[in-house]
Amino acid sequence: MTLSNIKLFFTDIDGVWTDGGMYYSENGVELKKFNTLDAAGVLLLRNLNIEIAIISGERTDSVKKRAHKLGIDNCFLGVKNKLATAKSFIDSKNISFEECAHIGDDYNDIELLKKVGLSACPSNARTDIKNIVEWSLKINGGDGAFCAFVEKYLTDILKIEPITIYKNIYGFNI
Amino acid sequence: MTLSNIKLFFTDIDGVWTDGGMYYSENGVELKKFNTLDAAGVLLLRNLNIEIAIISGERTDSVKKRAHKLGIDNCFLGVKNKLATAKSFIDSKNISFEECAHIGDDYNDIELLKKVGLSACPSNARTDIKNIVEWSLKINGGDGAFCAFVEKYLTDILKIEPITIYKNIYGFNI
Amino acid sequence: MTLSNIKLFFTDIDGVWTDGGMYYSENGVELKKFNTLDAAGVLLLRNLNIEIAIISGERTDSVKKRAHKLGIDNCFLGVKNKLATAKSFIDSKNISFEECAHIGDDYNDIELLKKVGLSACPSNARTDIKNIVEWSLKINGGDGAFCAFVEKYLTDILKIEPITIYKNIYGFNI
Amino acid sequence: MTLSNIKLFFTDIDGVWTDGGMYYSENGVELKKFNTLDAAGVLLLRNLNIEIAIISGERTDSVKKRAHKLGIDNCFLGVKNKLATAKSFIDSKNISFEECAHIGDDYNDIELLKKVGLSACPSNARTDIKNIVEWSLKINGGDGAFCAFVEKYLTDILKIEPITIYKNIYGFNI
Repeated sequence: MTLSNIKLFFTDIDGVWTDGGMYYSENGVELKKFNTLDAAGVLLLRNLNIEIAIISGERTDSVKKRAHKLGIDNCFLGVKNKLATAKSFIDSKNISFEECAHIGDDYNDIELLKKVGLSACPSNARTDIKNIVEWSLKINGGDGAFCAFVEKYLTDILKIEPITIYKNIYGFNI
Repeated sequence: MTLSNIKLFFTDIDGVWTDGGMYYSENGVELKKFNTLDAAGVLLLRNLNIEIAIISGERTDSVKKRAHKLGIDNCFLGVKNKLATAKSFIDSKNISFEECAHIGDDYNDIELLKKVGLSACPSNARTDIKNIVEWSLKINGGDGAFCAFVEKYLTDILKIEPITIYKNIYGFNI
Repeated sequence: MTLSNIKLFFTDIDGVWTDGGMYYSENGVELKKFNTLDAAGVLLLRNLNIEIAIISGERTDSVKKRAHKLGIDNCFLGVKNKLATAKSFIDSKNISFEECAHIGDDYNDIELLKKVGLSACPSNARTDIKNIVEWSLKINGGDGAFCAFVEKYLTDILKIEPITIYKNIYGFNI
Repeated sequence: MTLSNIKLFFTDIDGVWTDGGMYYSENGVELKKFNTLDAAGVLLLRNLNIEIAIISGERTDSVKKRAHKLGIDNCFLGVKNKLATAKSFIDSKNISFEECAHIGDDYNDIELLKKVGLSACPSNARTDIKNIVEWSLKINGGDGAFCAFVEKYLTDILKIEPITIYKNIYGFNI
């Protein structure tokens, strides 16, 4: 097993795909602000045949909408125990924790972050989280941190320049 | 009485749990942007059996939704006189002002801030407020200022590292 | 006539009470993000018996909602020529331009800004606007620039510390 | 052909007219945050009889609403191949790519950015995009980058001070 063999990226949502903001309205509608940049991270992984699974302690339909938009089928919401949920999922896929990556920013991510082969957090995560992840990224949650994680995996571990994949995806030449 | 005996945390909402922003739509719906970080502050207090009461001069249902989500039952909205409302509430609970904490950022918080045993404001509160509180925090309203207040109470007064409580709440080891 | 005799504050909305952001939804609802701080500016003027009039080139019902919330009756929206609209309004009130203040951040504010007795703009207004106003404030639009304008008028022109008025409004002592 | 002969400005939306943020609600409504500043860029071009066409990989009705508000008729949404769509459009108009400008911030803009006579991106665009455009602007997406692009075209290429055009549009003197 080497890190170059990651088969599945888990990702937290609040504080990673967002800045942690939760917009509440009077009539109970809740909004989250996502960033178009993270869509590129999803495309990169898909192009490399690496799976993606959203795993969040929150249960909001806005995340389902975003996941659907990006074609992410594995979407675990309202998760009490992320480690247990992840374990059950990867067992069914015959994937080991060493073959998984995870990015999260909060205490309920710690057990999973410690277990996976590659762990990361946004630059504005709590110090307690920064202390236990392999990569404390330079980008804040909501500013494209998920995409930055995927791109760093490509450049640092797979030794692939992301633009070479983007060329295939978007069909451009430079 | 010592500060280590705080039984109740009062908290303002606009400018503390939010950046003071109020989103108005054409059809009258009003949104507020909360931060997931402050939910952790609520969990800390609950774990320590310390009560929480929201006390706001505004009356918007979005605050009720957020309070309900976090399981906060004491939610005083549209309050004209925060000191009087707080007094009436703590009398019914047989709690003294010295056993209360409060975080606020505006002029209608002053009387209550001066009366409680422990007072705080976000880093971007008005100077007039900063001048009268015990703790002028380093975090802006909407960026987790309420949670920062609770965590500082734990570390500075109770001499408890928040992570030791979070371990119990979230069930992780480090 | 001296500047200490301002009877009416005009104010632009987009870029002054907001950061210029306009939130559009799929179903045509438009939101604006206001700041609770500016409500204090309204209270200050009301306490001093100085009138307020909103004057905006845009026509969005969210502004009407905010104005209604703050008890501002004079609300001119969708204004093509701010100078002409202002002239007609102050004539009916028997107020001269020298007795008016105005804060704005865009080109359609220029003629009115040049005409009034006291003019201001937020710190992030265009350079062309900064060049013609008396006070280029230190606060960005949406961060309480309107309130900052009113408070500066109190301190610099009327020689009144705003907190002395806030004491009356909110009923606190320091 | 000289750059002073641009007849059509293409513009991307997400990351240019916005900060890349996509607000999702539980009930599927999606919001985008536009900036009033970019409206001025549209007015400048219209005053100079230069056409505008929105060209976006996304398909959201909020963009249609914003385009309608600003009177922009050419609005290509959900575009898979921006170069092909642009080619087809300008052929029908008898305009060459050399007579076109384009501002974009993402990989799906690259082919069009490379083809047009004048290309630009916001200051927070990806490095890969900055490397291929003529003008890497000093303003972030969502902060008026489109307007800044148009104004820079006026000052640097047409040698026209934008304020001289704004004077005509808004009818003010300085």
